[in-house]
Amino acid sequence: MEHQNKPCQSLTRRQMMIGTAGALAAGTALAQFGGLLKSAHAAGGSTEKWPWPYEKLDPVKTAELAYKEWYRVFCGAAVINSVFNQLQEKFGEPYTSFPDDAFVFLEGGMVGWGMTCGSNAGAAIVANAIIGPRIAGGNEGHQITEDIFEWYSDAAMPVFTPKTPKITTELVKTTADSPLCHVSVGKWMKASGFHIGSPERKDRCARVAASVAYHLVELLNDWHDKKYQPTATHKPVKEFGITAQMNCMDCHSDDVPTPPMAKK
Amino acid sequence: MEHQNKPCQSLTRRQMMIGTAGALAAGTALAQFGGLLKSAHAAGGSTEKWPWPYEKLDPVKTAELAYKEWYRVFCGAAVINSVFNQLQEKFGEPYTSFPDDAFVFLEGGMVGWGMTCGSNAGAAIVANAIIGPRIAGGNEGHQITEDIFEWYSDAAMPVFTPKTPKITTELVKTTADSPLCHVSVGKWMKASGFHIGSPERKDRCARVAASVAYHLVELLNDWHDKKYQPTATHKPVKEFGITAQMNCMDCHSDDVPTPPMAKK
Repeated sequence: MEHQNKPCQSLTRRQMMIGTAGALAAGTALAQFGGLLKSAHAAGGSTEKWPWPYEKLDPVKTAELAYKEWYRVFCGAAVINSVFNQLQEKFGEPYTSFPDDAFVFLEGGMVGWGMTCGSNAGAAIVANAIIGPRIAGGNEGHQITEDIFEWYSDAAMPVFTPKTPKITTELVKTTADSPLCHVSVGKWMKASGFHIGSPERKDRCARVAASVAYHLVELLNDWHDKKYQPTATHKPVKEFGITAQMNCMDCHSDDVPTPPMAKK
Repeated sequence: MEHQNKPCQSLTRRQMMIGTAGALAAGTALAQFGGLLKSAHAAGGSTEKWPWPYEKLDPVKTAELAYKEWYRVFCGAAVINSVFNQLQEKFGEPYTSFPDDAFVFLEGGMVGWGMTCGSNAGAAIVANAIIGPRIAGGNEGHQITEDIFEWYSDAAMPVFTPKTPKITTELVKTTADSPLCHVSVGKWMKASGFHIGSPERKDRCARVAASVAYHLVELLNDWHDKKYQPTATHKPVKEFGITAQMNCMDCHSDDVPTPPMAKK
């Protein structure tokens, strides 16, 4: 027999976050989804050793680099390059061999399909390449990814304003309540009235990439100083019985499906 | 003045695909979204040269490797490792230096948030790392990514059955009409009745990773033989004026918002 409940039907995202008592270890939250965890095994090559070398970076400098790079490689690769290019200058390998520009495809939520905002995906790649995956024994890369997704969802974007922006008029800020490109860009387009091909929309997304790069480096700097504390409270598999965002009703309205649940 | 239309309100995905006359170059479809394209510039290091060395791989062998790897590194990294481990054996670098296992975070649509299915994201990473980004002068990596997303959305998953599966009973097949983890897994869970932590759901996802790896290698082999023809018809920015999937009504029901459109 399976339990029938609709865990997020009458909860706002904020209520859920308040109701969740602090952050849980990422491994715990995904244990039910991911299955048996094994110790790290460098099947892909002997270079798969973590963490990669890291020195604290300046968030403002990183954000400015991401802003500039957006106009060359777009959101995902801009975030990756803003961090990795600086670390490549300091350390060389393994950053030199990482094919940063291959991640142009993250643009527009992956080739324009509006899925994960490329800035979020780029930040996740940076955090996990530097710190390593949870199967390698540490959860911080995984946790920083969760933190970035949640911070992004809650932020009035774009947070960061570059020193010399291409668009000098003030840009509207909107909160996506989601880490998805389509939702984030769509809400901003609706509030601002600017179309997808407008210079203003492009500059908004360049600033979003800069904002994410800024916060990413704040978290990585804390991790480097052994001061990092995970803050994300969204544990989808544990809370909803399925991989999910936290805003079920944004898509499902008041008819949130109930996934098959494990016997308790 | 802005145009008001609801381009996908009364169209099914299939109708839209039938109505779209063949595949367009990816560069064209994204030109409005991405802004000015520049020629490739290896800002991230001198190793950013494309294409990476490639030899035709056996789709069945690749799929079996992905199936097996799923139980170690989950969907995204399983697809990456199934291809890159074979190419590393043949060529060494640049595959040896690629941090495959860092992509464990792609699991569950990225740390369990149900966004892009990790198998799709992993396939996109493989295609774009090997072929290179569209800013490097070729569109095939971008186009193969689009093809994978569309093929995945239409496929009765899981397509591939391994020789010696962990679950020996027959698994239900479902069509996601979406490249998203949450939608793909959710529809399968509803049809099968199996919960997220069940061995059947895990084996279904391991087979999905295998299915994607299989098709990815078919496309890469065609590309290697100079026989690759892009097939994807979904051009979201061009068709809808926003980064998007093709199934607007799955989320928006009959109230599809109209994005601000460019003057014509």
